[in-house]
Amino acid sequence: MTSTQTRHTLSELERGVPFADRHIGPDTDGLARMLTSIGVSSLDDLAARALPDSIRDTEPVATTLPDAATEAEMLAELRTLADRNTVTVPMIGLGYHGTRTPSVIRRNVLENPAWYTAYTPYQPEISQGRLEALLAFQTTVSDLTGLPVAGASLLDEATAAAEAMTLLRRAGKSASPRFVVDADTLPQTLDVLRTRAEPLGIELEVADVSGGLPDGEMYGVLLSYPGASGRIADPSSLISEAHDRGALVVVAADLLALTLLSPPGELGADAAVGSTQRFGVPLGFGGPHAGYLSVGEKQARQLPGRLVGMSRDADGNPALRLALQTREQHIRREKATSNICTAQVLLAVMAACYAAYHGPDGLAAIARRTHRMSAVLAAGLRAGGVELENDAFFDTIVARTPGRAAEVVRNAHEAGIALRPMDSDTVGVSCSELTTVEHLHRVWAAFDVEVSDVDALDESTSDALPDGLLRTSEYLTHPTFHDFRSETSMMRWLRRLADADLALDRTMIPLGSCTMKLNAASEMEPVTWPQFAELHPLAPEADSAGTREMITQLERWLTELTGYHAVSVQPNAGSQGELAGLLAIAAYHRSRGDHERDVCLIPSSAHGTNAASAVMAGLRVVVVGTDGRGDVDLDDLHAKIAEHGDRLAALMITYPSTHGVYEAQVRDVCTAVHDAGGQVYVDGANLNALVGVARPGAFGGDVSHLNLHKTFCIPHGGGGPGVGPVAVAEHLAPFLPGRGEVGAVSAARYGSPGVLPISWAYLRMMGPDGLRRATLTAVAAANYVARRLREYYPVLYAGEDGSVAHECILDLRKITKDSGVTVDDVAKRLIDYGIHAPTMSFPVAGTLMVEPTESEDVAEIDRFVDAMIGIRAEIDRVAAGEWPVEDNPLRGAPHTVACLVDKWDRPYTREVAAYPTGATPGVHDRKVWPPVRRIDGAHGDRNLVCSCPPPEAFA
Amino acid sequence: MTSTQTRHTLSELERGVPFADRHIGPDTDGLARMLTSIGVSSLDDLAARALPDSIRDTEPVATTLPDAATEAEMLAELRTLADRNTVTVPMIGLGYHGTRTPSVIRRNVLENPAWYTAYTPYQPEISQGRLEALLAFQTTVSDLTGLPVAGASLLDEATAAAEAMTLLRRAGKSASPRFVVDADTLPQTLDVLRTRAEPLGIELEVADVSGGLPDGEMYGVLLSYPGASGRIADPSSLISEAHDRGALVVVAADLLALTLLSPPGELGADAAVGSTQRFGVPLGFGGPHAGYLSVGEKQARQLPGRLVGMSRDADGNPALRLALQTREQHIRREKATSNICTAQVLLAVMAACYAAYHGPDGLAAIARRTHRMSAVLAAGLRAGGVELENDAFFDTIVARTPGRAAEVVRNAHEAGIALRPMDSDTVGVSCSELTTVEHLHRVWAAFDVEVSDVDALDESTSDALPDGLLRTSEYLTHPTFHDFRSETSMMRWLRRLADADLALDRTMIPLGSCTMKLNAASEMEPVTWPQFAELHPLAPEADSAGTREMITQLERWLTELTGYHAVSVQPNAGSQGELAGLLAIAAYHRSRGDHERDVCLIPSSAHGTNAASAVMAGLRVVVVGTDGRGDVDLDDLHAKIAEHGDRLAALMITYPSTHGVYEAQVRDVCTAVHDAGGQVYVDGANLNALVGVARPGAFGGDVSHLNLHKTFCIPHGGGGPGVGPVAVAEHLAPFLPGRGEVGAVSAARYGSPGVLPISWAYLRMMGPDGLRRATLTAVAAANYVARRLREYYPVLYAGEDGSVAHECILDLRKITKDSGVTVDDVAKRLIDYGIHAPTMSFPVAGTLMVEPTESEDVAEIDRFVDAMIGIRAEIDRVAAGEWPVEDNPLRGAPHTVACLVDKWDRPYTREVAAYPTGATPGVHDRKVWPPVRRIDGAHGDRNLVCSCPPPEAFA
Repeated sequence: MTSTQTRHTLSELERGVPFADRHIGPDTDGLARMLTSIGVSSLDDLAARALPDSIRDTEPVATTLPDAATEAEMLAELRTLADRNTVTVPMIGLGYHGTRTPSVIRRNVLENPAWYTAYTPYQPEISQGRLEALLAFQTTVSDLTGLPVAGASLLDEATAAAEAMTLLRRAGKSASPRFVVDADTLPQTLDVLRTRAEPLGIELEVADVSGGLPDGEMYGVLLSYPGASGRIADPSSLISEAHDRGALVVVAADLLALTLLSPPGELGADAAVGSTQRFGVPLGFGGPHAGYLSVGEKQARQLPGRLVGMSRDADGNPALRLALQTREQHIRREKATSNICTAQVLLAVMAACYAAYHGPDGLAAIARRTHRMSAVLAAGLRAGGVELENDAFFDTIVARTPGRAAEVVRNAHEAGIALRPMDSDTVGVSCSELTTVEHLHRVWAAFDVEVSDVDALDESTSDALPDGLLRTSEYLTHPTFHDFRSETSMMRWLRRLADADLALDRTMIPLGSCTMKLNAASEMEPVTWPQFAELHPLAPEADSAGTREMITQLERWLTELTGYHAVSVQPNAGSQGELAGLLAIAAYHRSRGDHERDVCLIPSSAHGTNAASAVMAGLRVVVVGTDGRGDVDLDDLHAKIAEHGDRLAALMITYPSTHGVYEAQVRDVCTAVHDAGGQVYVDGANLNALVGVARPGAFGGDVSHLNLHKTFCIPHGGGGPGVGPVAVAEHLAPFLPGRGEVGAVSAARYGSPGVLPISWAYLRMMGPDGLRRATLTAVAAANYVARRLREYYPVLYAGEDGSVAHECILDLRKITKDSGVTVDDVAKRLIDYGIHAPTMSFPVAGTLMVEPTESEDVAEIDRFVDAMIGIRAEIDRVAAGEWPVEDNPLRGAPHTVACLVDKWDRPYTREVAAYPTGATPGVHDRKVWPPVRRIDGAHGDRNLVCSCPPPEAFA
Repeated sequence: MTSTQTRHTLSELERGVPFADRHIGPDTDGLARMLTSIGVSSLDDLAARALPDSIRDTEPVATTLPDAATEAEMLAELRTLADRNTVTVPMIGLGYHGTRTPSVIRRNVLENPAWYTAYTPYQPEISQGRLEALLAFQTTVSDLTGLPVAGASLLDEATAAAEAMTLLRRAGKSASPRFVVDADTLPQTLDVLRTRAEPLGIELEVADVSGGLPDGEMYGVLLSYPGASGRIADPSSLISEAHDRGALVVVAADLLALTLLSPPGELGADAAVGSTQRFGVPLGFGGPHAGYLSVGEKQARQLPGRLVGMSRDADGNPALRLALQTREQHIRREKATSNICTAQVLLAVMAACYAAYHGPDGLAAIARRTHRMSAVLAAGLRAGGVELENDAFFDTIVARTPGRAAEVVRNAHEAGIALRPMDSDTVGVSCSELTTVEHLHRVWAAFDVEVSDVDALDESTSDALPDGLLRTSEYLTHPTFHDFRSETSMMRWLRRLADADLALDRTMIPLGSCTMKLNAASEMEPVTWPQFAELHPLAPEADSAGTREMITQLERWLTELTGYHAVSVQPNAGSQGELAGLLAIAAYHRSRGDHERDVCLIPSSAHGTNAASAVMAGLRVVVVGTDGRGDVDLDDLHAKIAEHGDRLAALMITYPSTHGVYEAQVRDVCTAVHDAGGQVYVDGANLNALVGVARPGAFGGDVSHLNLHKTFCIPHGGGGPGVGPVAVAEHLAPFLPGRGEVGAVSAARYGSPGVLPISWAYLRMMGPDGLRRATLTAVAAANYVARRLREYYPVLYAGEDGSVAHECILDLRKITKDSGVTVDDVAKRLIDYGIHAPTMSFPVAGTLMVEPTESEDVAEIDRFVDAMIGIRAEIDRVAAGEWPVEDNPLRGAPHTVACLVDKWDRPYTREVAAYPTGATPGVHDRKVWPPVRRIDGAHGDRNLVCSCPPPEAFA
């Protein structure tokens, strides 16, 4: 008996299909077709041609990253790590609380690719679903804080506080650089405020404000309500005092407590910040969670980050989009209000759904449960002779147990409960939605207190909320918070919203610079494993052994893959990674006595974030020009270096450049900067063109940030979470955030550990060979697109050999000039073709930047290319005068079904509008219908509505 | 400090929101509105009015079902039970094999409500997605078995074999009642064949066919390929011999093995049966899995169960629908080919996706891995001196280890591997996709064999597949099995298919008699927990302690809720529960010497399945008429009882009746039957109108089957899995399936344990009070619909007080007569309104039966009612002659976007066609577009195409 088939060894058969074959879209035939089209014989040949020899690794460099594991092997390994964690009942508090994610939300949002694979809603016509959810988020925050304008989330509570600190400075009239912070504020918030204040010249003063504000001028004040100690003090008089003295006030408030307590807005605050984590978002060892910031009407235009607002579409129907985008860093660069360019959309959506599912009465019931548990806990301890620090509190009590704190904490831990050790004499205990009477007994027991009749104790125990601060105003009265209270209605709402959006589960999203690649199900599954999801960031060190080991491995692999010496995963967005990297450079110079080095050179083609981050790091931005092929203009670089001499702190460059080109001269650029005493910051936004083929740390970079949500498969989540680790050379390692020399840049030590298993899983399943193959396939795909489209649209820049890197820029400027058809028209028309638009007008206005990534197969890439060719033919008809420039299928795009059904008096047919590639019957149709037509952003900016409008608005 | 709010005790607060408040759609206000509309003051008032006093329990009867747990408490309890299971590496085989569900399929199908909440595709226009997946299933089975027509799955391999046994009898020409079965057939298949053969008078002979067929006449033969022992024998000569002797042959074949072995069709077989479990479907302790049955063209019209086929829609485009429906039991009743009325759609979809994701090459690689592991395992054992029984095998070897079998099995179990103990001297070992070299070492070690160089052993070991049986023909050449091989493309295919279908995640599905209620996420989550999902049904008893305890509790609760003495969850569909119940009755009569009792009275309004099941149980069906109000005609009943006298075996009634009415006389009916020596079978299809308010076992039933997929929240899965436990009074308990007196009705001891956590979770979270409330809310909702619609459509039947039970029948017969508008027109027009149709023409032709269930909130019920009112107005315009009967929005329904975009020359506008309730801008639109227009079923039946057509068909 013999086999007629090719003989494979048992170990070959055992290996099975490598994950890389699932992650990478093109199969062998497809890849061959692409390579033939671009005129190379193999991926290695492509690498040799596209990448400068000076930087190219000819084979994978040695790393500790093991060879690729199968999906099953990876999951088994990760399960072993997860099992090394110990999950206890979290009663530590400090801004992180036990919460219960409703299963219907976990399953249909956090575990549903329709939600987690979506991009930031820059194309609002196919983002109405998440925009509606974000509007519900904003309404939740706005209603609960009593302030009319809330943004669509910030990275965490601590960075939200830092943003508020700078917002008040911009918004206020005081010339004082002094910002006073309530000493009873979360320690991680204090840390981040310190980090952020110093380079901006803000004088931060942490003060006990229980007796009033400190003397002297100040521009702003941050009060905590409740305080980190759990104490609730009425902030009204401090707010009045601050206002009287010309200062503005932000209140850091617990959103759940605000269902019972008078909101900051009603108490006079100018702004409020906090976390929405306890609204159903898993602890995840510290993140990701959505921070919030709300302000008064007057401050709306000063708000950092994303803001969703109502506007109207081309048919006059209400529609949502990001409001006031001109505030943002990609427009305003170094003049931006902040370097924030992502939000925590996926988590904000979850928090909004939690609020909608529970409604105002449900939230209040949860708050009352939380409070009553705390009150009865306190009463039991008091009855047992334990002294407590505060009389008025919401969920947190501080118990004095002289000399016994460690023992109490240990007792509780043995009973499966994590308390907060404060010093040798004091223990903090925080209740939450999860607290049960049984937990109270365990805590009492930890204190050697016994309560025999809890019901009687409950009966005899009053609330511990201050009478004068009880909330009387209504909140969450909008139907959104009342209509989805059964699981069926919530499930359908979530489906309906998801159906309005175009995410990776329906089409390629060829967004240049965003790397919208596969977020594999096997990578996502561990995120909701309880051992990862339910870990408190301040749990005893031993309880997080598994997660920390996972992080250590991930940091090591990232370090080796980028050619650096050390990585910190703390920055919870790319912008925060940039800031951390620049802070490291600044601190390094200072440590060497180079106090004058404050100039940061940035090419004109850079992401706007670069400039905004440089400003936040206390640097002065000097722009370097680009030459005719889009590369850094070496002459201008040398001139600028010469001009600024010993003031040169750093150069920030993106590699490959934001023009999608491997600049051949990058080593020369780095050398020039180093020779002048500067440091080189290599922005890692385009790392998907480098992993496994070149290492920024090896070709001249001193520091880079990486975008785990681009290159390393953390899903974009509709606009967050992002994770932006910072990688540094050895001399900068002491200056990583939170390692002593430089403070924290995020609230949690490890930033967003809850999603790090995704990147770990990706690396573990790809292995060094798979990563290299992915990179080169992405480069092949971009070159294939460029090759196929260049006769229809000029490709703006290319390397010396005519190759692009992992993305390419289609130049529409002449086409627009000739025909009047804009990039906007093309982007919206692509929706009619059932495809998400590429990046518009970045880095060059009037262009489209296309990044297909390695995950798209050739059929899908061809679908995009064919659509672009079809659109070019449509443009030609406009240019030829066949269709008026103001009334043609491009300007009319996107078309809704409703507009087709209406009376039709356009110069093109309904068929052309609806089915530019012809209708495909049945389930094979790739057509996706947008819920609204093109949205008029300016109208909304003139008439700002940023919370759920009355239902009549849709009538 | 005091609270101004209503004071709740700590334990009230701790309880939180009851799950019942999430499961039940109407909130307090909504319920009040419904009750007011129907003129009752409370649910209790409604119960008193709607239910006959003679059967009504005035308060929840005592059960061991505890008070409602919260979702978190339920999950914690179930987790504790799950943790009592021990999952080992399954090498037991016997039709159940280790397999790996690709994460992308688990997440996007099994964990996605768009798939699992769908109903059977009786409305094909909004079922094209799962119909396409089922077509891929049929193609997979057809290609691999080499037989042209495969059905859309059967309940399991054993029942598929039983169906084949009867199919061959119908299809063949032999008059012999003898059916010969290969003795080397799976034991569970033999069990079910025995159960099914006996009442039909089939003489089953289990014979060793290795030397040829036994002498004598036979109408059919079942051969196993490979055999239960793993042995592969060439069935060709036996097939020839059988054919020569006038018998037809079915081959039970392992689908994975058929990627390497010549398929049954090529070897001359008339039919093939088997399981598709190892195509990515979790073991689940035995089920649910999709069985398969494929046949030659000639037998297509004899095929039992569902068959998907191509047809065309009103615009001439290709479209899928269930083919040859006239075969089915709901049409043919006692003349049906089978009582099968569900499939295992969700599992069949998973298997099809698995085939598509791996493709023919991937499946062959998995098969080769499986085979080579077995071959090398065998070689190692032989080298170690262990004797093996077979030389030719695919994945299973049988090792002789005289006197040591138990020890070997124990050794292996200690090493985490489950082997198959056969007798004291023999051990079976089966390899699978999961087998690794490391597992081989553990197995060798269990036999005290050591293999030092596996690579060398591999090198020197030949395949163990018989040369003459190696497959040479191609399979799965259709693009479906090649286009979705990257995870991205698979994810998008699944989304695209799901988007074509209307499931509970987008609209209410008011299907009378089907109880489309919420399938809660918390109920579904445990299904994919590895401790439940990865358990082999023949694992050592101790390994399944948790699942068995869960089943014991579930059976006990179901017993108590229905007022019976015992329940068996074995029947894996309602039809199987019916059969089991009737077999119990028949066996009971026989046990008392009543051999003549073979008449089964069935009201004319009964589900067709009842009659078909009765025939399968060896009973003669005698129809009892219904009176003017739809109740059993008592006079006719008494006449029929008198007529059949001592031949009366049973009466089967549905309660409340299939007319949706609580018949007041049910006790009298039961008494009359009992008095005549008959048994009363109460069909539990409508149990959602009884749970917590009345118990069939208490008001006269001797046996009932329940539909866990209706009343107890197992999702319909697009047409399966169903679970149909049989509940019996004490005197029938010995006759439950597989308990000695009556054989097995399903392959696995507990049927489909993999989905039983769903019903357990539902009961545990509802508690007795919640269940009662759910039932009465469902009744209230049906009465509310009847009340609101009766001025537009006559409500056909009602109880004595004018109430309906949990569903109501809208009588369109006069409307049809007056206007020409049919129930079909109304059902299809509802799609244009964005709503799934009610049940059509059952139990009365020309009517619609509406069952809103308790899970729909009043807003959604009103949306349905308003749509029906809108449709009535449209009908009136047809009746008034305003629109022609052949060309109006009803007859033209459903409308696709494509048809709206085309030239329009209809007497109604596009607006009327598309947006009968007006277009709602943005995400608030509930409009869902069907992918095809009305489908011409007859066309497809005349031109049967039941596997994936060439892509040109869609061009």
